[in-house]
Amino acid sequence: MAIRRRKFWGWGYEDQGLTAAEVRELAERMAARFKLGTLRIASPPTIDEITLRPSRVSPPSDLESLCTADPHERAGHSYGKSFRDVIRAFRREFPNPPDVVAFPTDESDLVRVLEWCDRERLVAIPYGGGSTVTAGIEPPPDGDYPGVVSIDLTRLDHVLEVDKQSRAARIQAGVMGPSLEDQLRPHRVTLRHFPQSFEFSTLGGWIATRSGGHYATLYTHIDDFVESMRVVTPTGIIESRRLPGSGAGPSPDRMFIGSEGILGIITEAWMRLQDRPTFRAGASVLFKDFMAGAKAVRAIGQAGLYPANCRLLDAGEAANAGANSAGESVLVIAFESGDHPVEDAMKRALECCTDHGGHVPGGVGGAEATHEGAAGAWRTAFLRGPFVRDALVAIGILGETFETAITWDRFPDFHAQVMARVGDAITRICGQGSLTCRFTHVYPDGAAPYYSVLAPARPGSELEQWDEIKKVAMATLIDLGGTITHHHSVGRDHRPGYDRQRPDGFASALRAAKRALDPNGILNPGVLIDP
Amino acid sequence: MAIRRRKFWGWGYEDQGLTAAEVRELAERMAARFKLGTLRIASPPTIDEITLRPSRVSPPSDLESLCTADPHERAGHSYGKSFRDVIRAFRREFPNPPDVVAFPTDESDLVRVLEWCDRERLVAIPYGGGSTVTAGIEPPPDGDYPGVVSIDLTRLDHVLEVDKQSRAARIQAGVMGPSLEDQLRPHRVTLRHFPQSFEFSTLGGWIATRSGGHYATLYTHIDDFVESMRVVTPTGIIESRRLPGSGAGPSPDRMFIGSEGILGIITEAWMRLQDRPTFRAGASVLFKDFMAGAKAVRAIGQAGLYPANCRLLDAGEAANAGANSAGESVLVIAFESGDHPVEDAMKRALECCTDHGGHVPGGVGGAEATHEGAAGAWRTAFLRGPFVRDALVAIGILGETFETAITWDRFPDFHAQVMARVGDAITRICGQGSLTCRFTHVYPDGAAPYYSVLAPARPGSELEQWDEIKKVAMATLIDLGGTITHHHSVGRDHRPGYDRQRPDGFASALRAAKRALDPNGILNPGVLIDP
Repeated sequence: MAIRRRKFWGWGYEDQGLTAAEVRELAERMAARFKLGTLRIASPPTIDEITLRPSRVSPPSDLESLCTADPHERAGHSYGKSFRDVIRAFRREFPNPPDVVAFPTDESDLVRVLEWCDRERLVAIPYGGGSTVTAGIEPPPDGDYPGVVSIDLTRLDHVLEVDKQSRAARIQAGVMGPSLEDQLRPHRVTLRHFPQSFEFSTLGGWIATRSGGHYATLYTHIDDFVESMRVVTPTGIIESRRLPGSGAGPSPDRMFIGSEGILGIITEAWMRLQDRPTFRAGASVLFKDFMAGAKAVRAIGQAGLYPANCRLLDAGEAANAGANSAGESVLVIAFESGDHPVEDAMKRALECCTDHGGHVPGGVGGAEATHEGAAGAWRTAFLRGPFVRDALVAIGILGETFETAITWDRFPDFHAQVMARVGDAITRICGQGSLTCRFTHVYPDGAAPYYSVLAPARPGSELEQWDEIKKVAMATLIDLGGTITHHHSVGRDHRPGYDRQRPDGFASALRAAKRALDPNGILNPGVLIDP
Repeated sequence: MAIRRRKFWGWGYEDQGLTAAEVRELAERMAARFKLGTLRIASPPTIDEITLRPSRVSPPSDLESLCTADPHERAGHSYGKSFRDVIRAFRREFPNPPDVVAFPTDESDLVRVLEWCDRERLVAIPYGGGSTVTAGIEPPPDGDYPGVVSIDLTRLDHVLEVDKQSRAARIQAGVMGPSLEDQLRPHRVTLRHFPQSFEFSTLGGWIATRSGGHYATLYTHIDDFVESMRVVTPTGIIESRRLPGSGAGPSPDRMFIGSEGILGIITEAWMRLQDRPTFRAGASVLFKDFMAGAKAVRAIGQAGLYPANCRLLDAGEAANAGANSAGESVLVIAFESGDHPVEDAMKRALECCTDHGGHVPGGVGGAEATHEGAAGAWRTAFLRGPFVRDALVAIGILGETFETAITWDRFPDFHAQVMARVGDAITRICGQGSLTCRFTHVYPDGAAPYYSVLAPARPGSELEQWDEIKKVAMATLIDLGGTITHHHSVGRDHRPGYDRQRPDGFASALRAAKRALDPNGILNPGVLIDP
């Protein structure tokens, strides 16, 4: 049986991605858009083009069968999947790979691997799907470490137990989205957590990075779906109780949720599940003005209606998505339930929209409009996004996204300043480019705006240009009171912004907690905090 | 102007409580219920009957105006409001009062008070409404401390800012429930957080103890309503960003929420508010069998209907509350919204009830049935509960409540064992008594059952009897996989259970975090963890 291998340099399996014809078509479209000459299409690297530093360490004999120094694996575990990561791969630059990749098959394997790392003071990096866009799984660039072990959790990939009565399941942390849903489907339940990385990210990764999921309103972060967790640390295993709710001291789970591998390695979690939806209603609403759309979204968010989808696209995003070419903003709104009809909620939400000048050209649709129709098309395009981004790298177009959250009172000014400051930076750094915005998640007290940058890069300077734009974006979010990330994580890339956002006292407490659990500081050093 | 004073020995203001006639009536009712002779009615203490140890410390001159060693205040800040606390007060036993009570009027006062405590190694106990039933504000019984300062936050009692757009407010931590709502009312918004202690507990106390509020489903713990916080610690002030959502590392707020005063003192918080409800529907549903009612509640909890109220009373509770005397369980269910009608949700919830054998004798009511009617009567009785409890102490009836949360799959066996083990303990320890149960909060994956004990105590042995029953209850909850508290906090009383529940690794991390923020260990030592 041929093993289907992941690309070591970009998104997905080796047999996936845009076809050569699709890449050419994209290159022509981008050339026309930015009035450029013919774009050169760079070839992705092959593993024989990559020279890796020899491994500095070898596993002890009892761990040999779990470990590999295979170049494909070492290169593949060197980077995440940000623009910067893929550019470096296209440059054939892998100066700092892990020395060993370990594939524990169960928790006791993992304990032994971590004991080895702790004993030898090797850096231990928990690795799920490797979908990080913030360098969260990258070996530390400096520091006095004898070696680095990337601990790949993807063999811990089973749904171990399903409790239909409580609608919860005990799930191993290394399972990726599709397999997780496949294993739940026979039980007629779903986790219904669909980050853009869904196909190549893991439950443990979602929990460690506080990923944002399917639901636009109400519970959306993975945080709220965690019932209990099991975490392996260098000083022992920590397991919280399975509880629907508790008021017993600070929540232990909340300390590990978002800890990005610096406190321990999540091996399994009891997760709260959903019934599969059977009732649906959806519509697209047009607004002349993005801010009018935002007001409608605020009204919906504060009405206690809880749409599953409430995605407001500005005119640029709407045009990019093929949703509107008339310069209007588009709100894609949908309700779903596994229990009861949702038409009344939809109707009330549309009233909120018309109150703020929205109009509904296509009317309200049921299952067809939202599942196989517009929403289905969106989802396909959404999950295809990372493949397109890799193709942009190949043709020299800089693609970057940054996302945040902000309260409603500050949103109009915040958004205007982000557009101005980051927009100016794009023009200054790349000569031209586009900056667009959509809402990914909506709260009663604010929204999570998500910004996309597209700009022609100067060949050879892509990294520097990306880095400059990223710096301006980070500084802008933090200066204006936003969060450095709503659901992309902090990793290494967002550290400068996070360091300004995170209260100093909390940093001391977190550092102290890390020292208690990981006294030798081997777990993902440099992510979130310095040792 | 006469100052209305709080009782130093029990619930409420000095002019509040049951009348002498009401206490006599209660005594007759209890005597008849438990087939006892005439019950002696003990008199509550007066302050001149109390001998307090002389204060061991005096404040520095610049803090003198904020501090008092007045016996009424020292006695009043010695205990919380549990059965054990009030019994000790009735026994005129106050062997371990705080030496000084400080009343900071703003944050800078508080900083100076805390600096003094830190400098002199005095124990510093944050004190809100003093409504703890877990000894969370009691000076440590032992330890090498030169003195104890109770820091009363109730002069920090203002709503400082209301952001109508984001529907949030910046509120000082020392404000009590009624004043908080009074200050929000002109803005036509509400926090809508009504713990039983509402009238004599504070925002800061709710946050520090993860109190459970008005809503039976969806967001209910105060945790979910905190947008950001400001906390004074011995090593500095920590302020989190005001954000509707974030994924930037572990949540700083979640470390302080539930920290019960051991990490710092909350001075203010931005809180998420609600619109005042204008649409309502409510009903009472009868079930022959408590477990059938539980199944109906589970169906409602998993349907995504989100009733504001979903209170299932077993037959004993229903009889005590005057809601049913035919041995049936009663589900009080209500929906509310500030935006849209709720009849359809009510209708669907009632279908869930009839699916499990429920019947609705009174039909569904609108505003009248839920606000001024049954729900209003319930709320009045509910808030009056602590006064009745104090009267029970006076007549020698032991009253205790304990509460927990458990997933649905385990609930039937869990409940049966709690009723058996604690019921047996009551009979063994008190000869007779009652144990009843209701659900206070409901989750898709489980429920929060709340148990009430009522039993005749042996004069002179009330504390020992209470303590024995408490021990059995705690051990039972923990043995069977529940939480030691869903919303009553851990304090000193629940420590034995909490120590078994809390993962050891989390205890180490929490202890390390405390040492980082409170290196001299002055803040509420012995609560949650040992220094």
